[in-house]
Amino acid sequence: MRDKAFQDFYPDDVSHCYGCGRLNADGHQLKSYWDGDESVAEFTPRPYHTAIPGFVYGGLIASLIDCHATGTAAAAMYRHEGRAMDTLPAFRFVTASLQVDYLRPTPLGVPLTVRGRVEEIKGRKVVVRATLSAGGETCAEGRVVTVQMPENMIPRS
Amino acid sequence: MRDKAFQDFYPDDVSHCYGCGRLNADGHQLKSYWDGDESVAEFTPRPYHTAIPGFVYGGLIASLIDCHATGTAAAAMYRHEGRAMDTLPAFRFVTASLQVDYLRPTPLGVPLTVRGRVEEIKGRKVVVRATLSAGGETCAEGRVVTVQMPENMIPRS
Repeated sequence: MRDKAFQDFYPDDVSHCYGCGRLNADGHQLKSYWDGDESVAEFTPRPYHTAIPGFVYGGLIASLIDCHATGTAAAAMYRHEGRAMDTLPAFRFVTASLQVDYLRPTPLGVPLTVRGRVEEIKGRKVVVRATLSAGGETCAEGRVVTVQMPENMIPRS
Repeated sequence: MRDKAFQDFYPDDVSHCYGCGRLNADGHQLKSYWDGDESVAEFTPRPYHTAIPGFVYGGLIASLIDCHATGTAAAAMYRHEGRAMDTLPAFRFVTASLQVDYLRPTPLGVPLTVRGRVEEIKGRKVVVRATLSAGGETCAEGRVVTVQMPENMIPRS
């Protein structure tokens, strides 16, 4: 049985993200995992996630990189502090800055792999580098500056 | 009657983008217009476009900035060449690089305004600066490097 994904450890009240929240029935529900020092997620776009026919829409690529990076940031902070992911308080990161370079058109209809690597952890900030590939070929690269969500942004139910 | 949007001039075979294609029934169908030297688009996210509850998911913000920028690039190139937008060959731009800075959480449930301004036109490249605001407050800023789509990427029906 596969480990729980990073996003499966998010508390319920911050698990509604369209990109990666397990409680958002309409969303992508991206799942990210460790693979050694890298993090990895897979996602197969829907047929309507088109840019020009045959290729994946860039906004989805940005979204996948973004959510994979915030998930990686949370997981990395647990590791950094030597804590298990099911311990409290939970880590939840938001994006301060997102950079995506589109290297080549991303083919539609095949699984996409997003891989992340932590570039920097400093205070409440984690910088993640990411690649998005299809069939082993890198189609996009990203750099995401994430910051730990301020406590007062977390909704209280 | 309002003018046709930039995206309404895209040829049918490149009008399937999830973000802005008028022929993508599942997509956002973003519409961009000139407002003097700036371009402007409005979009009201759906309730499920959540980041954390009450705020808009960053991937959507990136998508709106991206599609508004490629539309602005096409419109700007027509202006640059002194051509009407209904003349052929049509201009259609794709994104080489997307940078989005999230300045503050974007509230969900209100119309968002995306404004663009051309920073540079050079050869087949157009660089667009964009802001995304809600209720008059700027929530995100973007810079998008767009390039004219190579002819051989355009599908032939």
